[in-house]
Amino acid sequence: MTTAPDQTPLRVALLGGGVVGGSVARLLTAQADDLAQRIGRPLEIVGIAVRRAGRDRSDLGVDPALFTTDAAELVTRADIVVEVIGGIEPARSLILSAMEHGASVVTANKALLAEDGPTLYAAAKQHGVDLYYEAAVAGAIPILRPIRDSLAGDSIRRVIGIVNGTTNFVLDAMDSTGAGFAETVERAQALGYAEADPTADVEGFDAAAKAAILSSLAFHSRVASADVHREGITEVSARDIAAAQEMGCTVKLLAICERVTGQDGREGISARVHPALIPLSHPLASVREAYNAVFVEAEGAGELMFYGQGAGGDPTASAVLGDLVAVARARVTGGRGPGESAYADLPVLPMGEAITRYHVSLDVADRSGVLASVASVFAEHDVSIETVRQQVVTDDDGSARAILVIVTHAATDAALSATVNELDGLDTVNEVTSVMRVEGN
Amino acid sequence: MTTAPDQTPLRVALLGGGVVGGSVARLLTAQADDLAQRIGRPLEIVGIAVRRAGRDRSDLGVDPALFTTDAAELVTRADIVVEVIGGIEPARSLILSAMEHGASVVTANKALLAEDGPTLYAAAKQHGVDLYYEAAVAGAIPILRPIRDSLAGDSIRRVIGIVNGTTNFVLDAMDSTGAGFAETVERAQALGYAEADPTADVEGFDAAAKAAILSSLAFHSRVASADVHREGITEVSARDIAAAQEMGCTVKLLAICERVTGQDGREGISARVHPALIPLSHPLASVREAYNAVFVEAEGAGELMFYGQGAGGDPTASAVLGDLVAVARARVTGGRGPGESAYADLPVLPMGEAITRYHVSLDVADRSGVLASVASVFAEHDVSIETVRQQVVTDDDGSARAILVIVTHAATDAALSATVNELDGLDTVNEVTSVMRVEGN
Repeated sequence: MTTAPDQTPLRVALLGGGVVGGSVARLLTAQADDLAQRIGRPLEIVGIAVRRAGRDRSDLGVDPALFTTDAAELVTRADIVVEVIGGIEPARSLILSAMEHGASVVTANKALLAEDGPTLYAAAKQHGVDLYYEAAVAGAIPILRPIRDSLAGDSIRRVIGIVNGTTNFVLDAMDSTGAGFAETVERAQALGYAEADPTADVEGFDAAAKAAILSSLAFHSRVASADVHREGITEVSARDIAAAQEMGCTVKLLAICERVTGQDGREGISARVHPALIPLSHPLASVREAYNAVFVEAEGAGELMFYGQGAGGDPTASAVLGDLVAVARARVTGGRGPGESAYADLPVLPMGEAITRYHVSLDVADRSGVLASVASVFAEHDVSIETVRQQVVTDDDGSARAILVIVTHAATDAALSATVNELDGLDTVNEVTSVMRVEGN
Repeated sequence: MTTAPDQTPLRVALLGGGVVGGSVARLLTAQADDLAQRIGRPLEIVGIAVRRAGRDRSDLGVDPALFTTDAAELVTRADIVVEVIGGIEPARSLILSAMEHGASVVTANKALLAEDGPTLYAAAKQHGVDLYYEAAVAGAIPILRPIRDSLAGDSIRRVIGIVNGTTNFVLDAMDSTGAGFAETVERAQALGYAEADPTADVEGFDAAAKAAILSSLAFHSRVASADVHREGITEVSARDIAAAQEMGCTVKLLAICERVTGQDGREGISARVHPALIPLSHPLASVREAYNAVFVEAEGAGELMFYGQGAGGDPTASAVLGDLVAVARARVTGGRGPGESAYADLPVLPMGEAITRYHVSLDVADRSGVLASVASVFAEHDVSIETVRQQVVTDDDGSARAILVIVTHAATDAALSATVNELDGLDTVNEVTSVMRVEGN
């Protein structure tokens, strides 16, 4: 005689009734039967914590009595807590309290994970619960689970991501229209692709949080937002984009996580966010508009790319619900999902030790010996030049200048930076008009 | 007082010492320490079953005493069995015996899974063990786990895959060189991209097995190889490729798994493998050479694409080892990984009920009324025409013919097929020069 399987619903508490929370509630309700089949037990929303009561939320198809402003109480009576409030507090306290009360947690909170992930991972371990957060990086794109699980038997060398939709939309629009940064951001704002205050996106803060999460998982180490070198796209000009096009490249804001050997021979991580030229032949170059993509290089697997929508209510909810099913299944079958590990404990190396290539445009005097003097500065700093292109420009007053475009071979960022600084001080150099890194080859 | 964690090695039996088996053994040995950290216990290879003893395998870095020709005995003394022999037997019997003896199984055997997956899934369930097979579809690309786990909270509408590297290499080479099928296959054979007998690849058998596995997982139903409509690429001509280019498309062999509503209103699955035109703007169009990619459309997530190497020793081994770590973790933490489910139990609909678009080239007489007679055949079958392009050709003898290129809107494959049959019988039609399906928009 077999016992009938336990069909007691698993209690789900939802923290946050905004765009993502609304999508989660709606999809969870609409797909209830499918989810119950996939999990082995039904899910039941036991409450939705919102900041303000009384707003009409009849579009979500859930019982209005479920809404509460008392999130702290709600997390004490759930098997699974879904946190889509965002921000550091009260999200962190609520998650920790949920875990103390025995609930597993699904969160989309990249800022919190990138600032204080280890506290959460430790709490999950201590209380024997699961903590999943696929939605925190690249929205709907399954990327954290592939890195953590699918590539668990491989050794990841490098992760390069386009993980911020706003900046990709802006750079893509600049590339196709030739317009400048400021006017393109305005257009993105008008179209809903950029916030009224776009700082978190255009200054790279959002991408840096995701780079921290990706680096931690890919290299089994602890990397926080503050460890990530960060440069935004506010300085990228129409001229930079045109220069990129001239050499068969496009400009993307990249989150780069690399395993590198530092100058003293120790193994470490380079984690950085900055705009960079990538060749049009690179798979990341074809990621248009607000799409996201993550390119992964691993020893065994070789090159992989994961592409899709990085934001939006339903795409983010899809990732949240995938985690929710995984966490719920673990409740049903016993056991815990794979947790984080930081056993490798690799240090994050300073930006100066990152190995990159540079694309440098110089406005120089048009006279003999200038190229030689410029080249000798590169040589002094052990930076090898890959290509030089010289173009003579005659100004309105009849005087001649030359534009030098130099692309280097790979060198440490410190050596490249020192080279550019010295070039800036040369008598023969009128102006260093543009300096951009080149990635992806 | 905490008890020291159990560090007894998990016993791994490897069935198959070929290219993939060799890569698995080598990577498993080289990364032993990392894998032990990720799993929580070390792995120990307890035997490698090979067909013939005595071959020098010193390059794998494993103890020569581990090689055995007695696979049946080996599977009885392992915690985890990795099967990379391929083929139906003895692989099936060995896997079933391994499960009976309590071992979890990792396999790359697409043919076996597509022919007799349900037997294996049932055995895994009966014996409470895990059966993982990420390597069976698209090599290194994490695709099965994302579909099964990451999208478990979503509803998948369509999966379109380039899942056979040989045919993609051939079609890509035909596209870039203008060469015909036969000479391109010879070139692919010379370069090692096609087998001496390329039937399984060019006739679509390999892709059909993968389409069966993808359909089963995506739609929680049982789909076998034999259920998949299959057309290979042997009939694709240089003229077809040129016609595709003229309309801004490229030709790819696609494995298509769709959730569809059949003519009687019942829900079902369309599972098919055939060459098709896709627009150059579609992400799958840029998948070059022998690379694989799988494009997924889901209700919440929207459009996703997964890209990477679909074959080769190390890429396949990467997928096998990812599964091995997952299975081993489940042994350590308790619980089982998510299994298959067929609860939706959707039927596979006949090819005639698939909804596709057609690209039809006709060689017709150059006289008035021809277009009208052709158009009326489409209308009779309720097939709506999207575009018509007509081009007049004067032959050497001075007589004129016209080439009509017609692209239809979406209609059932049955209606399209009946339309083409009737066109073929028209007096005014000299020849139906090409019929290709159009996908991806």
